[in-house]
Amino acid sequence: MRLTIISVGKIKERYTLVWERELTKRLSPYARINFIEIKEEPITQNKNPEIIKQKEGERILARIPLKAFVAALEISGKNFTSERFSAKIQQIQNQFSEICFIIGGPLGLHESVLKKANLRLSFSSFTFTHQIMRVLLLEQMYRAFCILNNRPYHY
Amino acid sequence: MRLTIISVGKIKERYTLVWERELTKRLSPYARINFIEIKEEPITQNKNPEIIKQKEGERILARIPLKAFVAALEISGKNFTSERFSAKIQQIQNQFSEICFIIGGPLGLHESVLKKANLRLSFSSFTFTHQIMRVLLLEQMYRAFCILNNRPYHY
Repeated sequence: MRLTIISVGKIKERYTLVWERELTKRLSPYARINFIEIKEEPITQNKNPEIIKQKEGERILARIPLKAFVAALEISGKNFTSERFSAKIQQIQNQFSEICFIIGGPLGLHESVLKKANLRLSFSSFTFTHQIMRVLLLEQMYRAFCILNNRPYHY
Repeated sequence: MRLTIISVGKIKERYTLVWERELTKRLSPYARINFIEIKEEPITQNKNPEIIKQKEGERILARIPLKAFVAALEISGKNFTSERFSAKIQQIQNQFSEICFIIGGPLGLHESVLKKANLRLSFSSFTFTHQIMRVLLLEQMYRAFCILNNRPYHY
């Protein structure tokens, strides 16, 4: 299946990129991954946070693949165990050939993006940086495919 | 304050270690970190998972610092937002000079370790590898100290 990951802001740290590359390689038998990085709107004191999220939201909406199942990562979204998440991925795969995950910037995602989502997904009640979120998402997708293919998870 | 992180199994991946080193450096104004890696009990088909967890548990219990506040990471533990977690850290700091976090192996922690814990802490309903858990924990501790010291979180 195709997997598009849209995130706000650029990842510069080499150690994060190396970890992502490793997980992308492990995922390659199951999914072709396309990373899209959206320009971050600078956060300044006299700028309304809603406007920042809206501007980033417009850029995100322009890049969502047309026929993809859209999952937005949101702190108050739905929680899954790894087993239930793999079952959800299976169910999505039966209807869609592409999943698009969206990871917001420090202020989160605009309502316009959340409205577009088929699923609002929460990884944690903690706030994490988008660097970590991308690694968490890739690792969980890899785990899901291992579960679905009855492969022991060695990592 | 002193921060001891006991985890089961050795971390070998360079990209994880580099990420940890970066977070340890960022945490250095607030905490002195001591990593303790416990030998993993090999998982074999004819070995009772309870026995594996018990053996690992004995090794963990032998390494917990005497006067530390003990927090065990467990999938069904208590959830925190980053703000509430920072408040909890503040509260612990008022009574203890050391916190000891415990991260289990693939099968989780034995009941004997969970009983010893002052707090059972959940980072996610998803299962993650202990490599990622250590990074998540360090990042969240750094975020907690930033919140407590009114420092903007740039990362």
